[in-house]
Amino acid sequence: MQFNRPFMEGGKVRRRIRIYDCRSKNGEKVNQEMLETSGLDFKGFIKLLHRTFGIRSNETFVLATTDRAVLDSKIFDELQDDSTLHLLKQKHQALAAATEENINFTPHYDTLIQSGTYEYWASRGQNPLPYSLAELIDNALSATAKNQGVRKIEIRMMFDDTLGKPAMIVLDNGCGMTSKQLKNWAVYRLSKFTRDVGSYGSEDEGYVRPDPVPRSLNSDISFFGVGGKQAVFHIGDSVRMISKPYGSPDVHEMVISKQDFEKKVKNKEDVYSGIIRNRKPGDLSHVKTNDERFLHNLIQEESGKENFTAVVITGVFPDHIAFLKQDIKVWTRQLAEVYHYYIHGVNGKEMRDSSADSDCHPEIKIMISLRDKPPVVMDLREVENDIQTMYIKSAVDTFEFKATTAQDGGTVDGLIRYHPFLYDRETYPEDPNAVQVSEFDWCAQSKGVKELAECYSRISGVLFTDDRFPVSTNKLTFMELELKLKHRDTFFTRIVKGQKQRGNIQKDFTQWLKNCHQKWDKQVKFLNFKKTITRTEL
Amino acid sequence: MQFNRPFMEGGKVRRRIRIYDCRSKNGEKVNQEMLETSGLDFKGFIKLLHRTFGIRSNETFVLATTDRAVLDSKIFDELQDDSTLHLLKQKHQALAAATEENINFTPHYDTLIQSGTYEYWASRGQNPLPYSLAELIDNALSATAKNQGVRKIEIRMMFDDTLGKPAMIVLDNGCGMTSKQLKNWAVYRLSKFTRDVGSYGSEDEGYVRPDPVPRSLNSDISFFGVGGKQAVFHIGDSVRMISKPYGSPDVHEMVISKQDFEKKVKNKEDVYSGIIRNRKPGDLSHVKTNDERFLHNLIQEESGKENFTAVVITGVFPDHIAFLKQDIKVWTRQLAEVYHYYIHGVNGKEMRDSSADSDCHPEIKIMISLRDKPPVVMDLREVENDIQTMYIKSAVDTFEFKATTAQDGGTVDGLIRYHPFLYDRETYPEDPNAVQVSEFDWCAQSKGVKELAECYSRISGVLFTDDRFPVSTNKLTFMELELKLKHRDTFFTRIVKGQKQRGNIQKDFTQWLKNCHQKWDKQVKFLNFKKTITRTEL
Ligand SMILES: Nc1ncnc2c1ncn2[C@@H]1O[C@H](COP(=O)(O)OP(=O)(O)OP(=O)(O)O)[C@@H](O)[C@H]1O
Ligand SMILES: Nc1ncnc2c1ncn2[C@@H]1O[C@H](COP(=O)(O)OP(=O)(O)OP(=O)(O)O)[C@@H](O)[C@H]1O
Ligand SMILES: [Mg+2]
Ligand SMILES: [Mg+2]
Repeated sequence: MQFNRPFMEGGKVRRRIRIYDCRSKNGEKVNQEMLETSGLDFKGFIKLLHRTFGIRSNETFVLATTDRAVLDSKIFDELQDDSTLHLLKQKHQALAAATEENINFTPHYDTLIQSGTYEYWASRGQNPLPYSLAELIDNALSATAKNQGVRKIEIRMMFDDTLGKPAMIVLDNGCGMTSKQLKNWAVYRLSKFTRDVGSYGSEDEGYVRPDPVPRSLNSDISFFGVGGKQAVFHIGDSVRMISKPYGSPDVHEMVISKQDFEKKVKNKEDVYSGIIRNRKPGDLSHVKTNDERFLHNLIQEESGKENFTAVVITGVFPDHIAFLKQDIKVWTRQLAEVYHYYIHGVNGKEMRDSSADSDCHPEIKIMISLRDKPPVVMDLREVENDIQTMYIKSAVDTFEFKATTAQDGGTVDGLIRYHPFLYDRETYPEDPNAVQVSEFDWCAQSKGVKELAECYSRISGVLFTDDRFPVSTNKLTFMELELKLKHRDTFFTRIVKGQKQRGNIQKDFTQWLKNCHQKWDKQVKFLNFKKTITRTEL
Repeated sequence: MQFNRPFMEGGKVRRRIRIYDCRSKNGEKVNQEMLETSGLDFKGFIKLLHRTFGIRSNETFVLATTDRAVLDSKIFDELQDDSTLHLLKQKHQALAAATEENINFTPHYDTLIQSGTYEYWASRGQNPLPYSLAELIDNALSATAKNQGVRKIEIRMMFDDTLGKPAMIVLDNGCGMTSKQLKNWAVYRLSKFTRDVGSYGSEDEGYVRPDPVPRSLNSDISFFGVGGKQAVFHIGDSVRMISKPYGSPDVHEMVISKQDFEKKVKNKEDVYSGIIRNRKPGDLSHVKTNDERFLHNLIQEESGKENFTAVVITGVFPDHIAFLKQDIKVWTRQLAEVYHYYIHGVNGKEMRDSSADSDCHPEIKIMISLRDKPPVVMDLREVENDIQTMYIKSAVDTFEFKATTAQDGGTVDGLIRYHPFLYDRETYPEDPNAVQVSEFDWCAQSKGVKELAECYSRISGVLFTDDRFPVSTNKLTFMELELKLKHRDTFFTRIVKGQKQRGNIQKDFTQWLKNCHQKWDKQVKFLNFKKTITRTEL
């Protein structure tokens, strides 16, 4: 049940009850009165009722809730401020005229707490934990999009008892949040598109669509205003957001927790009221409990930082802790796959170690550290076996293209790679997660040349979409990508060295495939077999 | 942005502003005051500030928001009740001591409006409209679960201009909602498990798990407190709920609409406040606009009914109207598939026309009517080509089993059907939607006998799960069904005529398959060919 904020006046809680006099005849206007009942017991209330509606002392009447429960002192005590009652002649009398009752239907706090629990399962049968971490990384990527220097995102797992209760921290050196933005963080479904704009200077100036960048890696990956909440409450049951916005001397801090929601319901307080603490960097005077010892270091680090955001999740569910510790190889590989082109640049992980970043964008560093025995520290770039890396490693040639959808002008950059047959085996990497790449007419086997039949299974593909392609709220599925790409008005062009090529893409593609086949596939065929020579000289 | 209900006292809006005096030195306690500013202009407010904090007339100070925006009359005018300000020595001064600011983070109304838009896409690439209708049918099935007589659910599409603007009505003769239950309908994420109980008599007595019934068709299909809202706002932009609860003389009615939300935001009112209208059945005095002419008939029908619920959706999106009209065959088949065992009984659509219902449960009638030119009226039972019907029709034998999961004691009833090869073709029905049935070890081809290889593709399966198997919020995917069923501790038993059979299920299944093959598959083989006889006598 939801509770209104109790109506206070002069420090006193008021309780006003609206009463409709339904004893009147058909057609007559219903008389209604608002009675102030604070301080009154049931008897006193009934007296007031008699006075207000001029009920004669010998008259019989029934006072009932709008659900026809006859009032007694117990029900009277439970009535909330702004309740509505019916004054009736008889219990089952029809309502000659309609009455109106004020209600409040504020969403239950499970809107925040439960939002992720089921959604993450909707798309795949896997453990969705890496995807919830991805939501937090997405947010950090957005926040660091305008960084001048390195963009640093750290996932710290504080699972060592000496640090307090288990906690997970996602820390970034992005633009941070003003106190107003921090409040907005907590507002479920408040998306960047619907956010209030133009209020006093400190808030952003409404949503501005970013300029196109190669492969749409613009970090513009927030849409719904649900991701952060979905993620943190999927991981644990409490979150402490700590943020220092760019250009401000203050750190803003806020805690939202399941326990707090429960407490507020119990005390009949407004569940969505909260507190933001504004303080100077490094001020840890509010950290009192030993459970949160890990906060000491975190807050002490603040002093050196211009701006940052730390998402501190506590009450981490034991299953998650086990998975995070034991399957660290699994989920870091999944993350390395999701963010491959962010951490390695638009061309992906280069096999030759080129430390000079070719595309001149600030480097993105995603660090994972597990404070446990033994501790683990790693850079997501070190992962060697994510499927993108494997595709890149085994590819010998690429075919680039761009697709433009007719209706809305969305663009998709695409890349097809060739993985040749070498001597005794296919080099096509096996994908442990079997990601599906949609097939287009022009590169579909069915339309291809017979002699190249086997080559169609030697290609892998990767797509980069712009913001015209909506994803589902859990960001695991594109909603209409396939439909849109297969639309007959969608236009495909081959790209060579960044330049659009005129010509028929199906023909170009088939030619490319043929070249690949001739140049790269090494089928061992023993031609011109003569005889077996036994080498005796060895 | 969210707005608090303006603080009213004696009919006057109040605006209280909390001010922290941050001019104090390190270590000193910060002085804070709450100032009542209604009726004050900026100048008057600054005067009050001087008085309250004893600011000397020649003293320099800065008054700023917690986001360090220096106050001017424009910002002052925009401040909400319960705002917090900092009184500083200098604009960039550090906060010697922390301050606390009250915030409110009530979810944005898109929580209701947008909840379905993306979710429905998460699981399948199809038009999700039938699944949103299914949410409303689910609710109606729950509501009619205890009906004595026929359980009637009607989907009425009022797309004829003469009836007003396009509207969609889902009507059931179930238990209806009290005014309190109707309010709870609107509370997002208020599930049956978390609902307030024990309040004055009229509300249910908390959630009681229903007794097991064959194939778990107990209509206990509400879990999250989101389905109804997700569905109606996926279909249109406004909903009118009309309900008469069992045993009450009153009809309760409520409207929630996107326009109304927008209006409230504009007027800085609480977006989640609403009105329930309590009235007698048949009272249509509140229906004023021609747009809703279709309400006349609906409300006039009320008089004959003991209890009912009508979900009236308006602002139906044009794409949906087109789909509903043109593809009526498609979506009624999908619904007939989803509710096959509800509308035809636990054994499914019997091919012989047995009007006597074998399981003695009240009949479930789902009617579809399209008020258009020409009108369409149909009973979902008439659908002949839903995939379940096709499976049943072409099956020659069945193998029943029950699975029990070890950890939580969930049960799954299963049915495998055999679709034989007949003369020149397979009789296995083609499923237009390619639903996947999870395979179990004991009926997997890989483990089977070689000679039966082809028979493994002649079986179809259907599973009935109990409430121990959670589904995703859009109810399109089981979250862990496959995992749980494949768990090595999950126990399978064959069922024959309702009785559990001892024995090895893999052996039993293989034997069954062999029998089916021998008995039913008719491969045309021309054995003992001798010669071609030309029949001359014809
Ligand atoms: N690390 C961060 N640094 C700065 N601002 C952040 C950070 N994380 C979140 N925010 C702010 O909080 C808002 C809410 O985040 P949240 O992830 O809940 O929703 P979203 O990113 O807007 O949408 P989506 O549902 O697509 O994730 C963001 O839009 C952003 O303004
Ligand atoms: N047709 C109906 N008749 C009676 N009560 C209804 C009807 N439809 C909805 N309700 C009530 O409103 C509540 C909210 O419905 P809603 O579909 O939004 O959520 P839910 O059914 O509780 O959960 P889910 O998200 O699984 O659908 C229901 O639990 C039920 O009490
Ligand atoms: Mg986000
Ligand atoms: Mg429901």
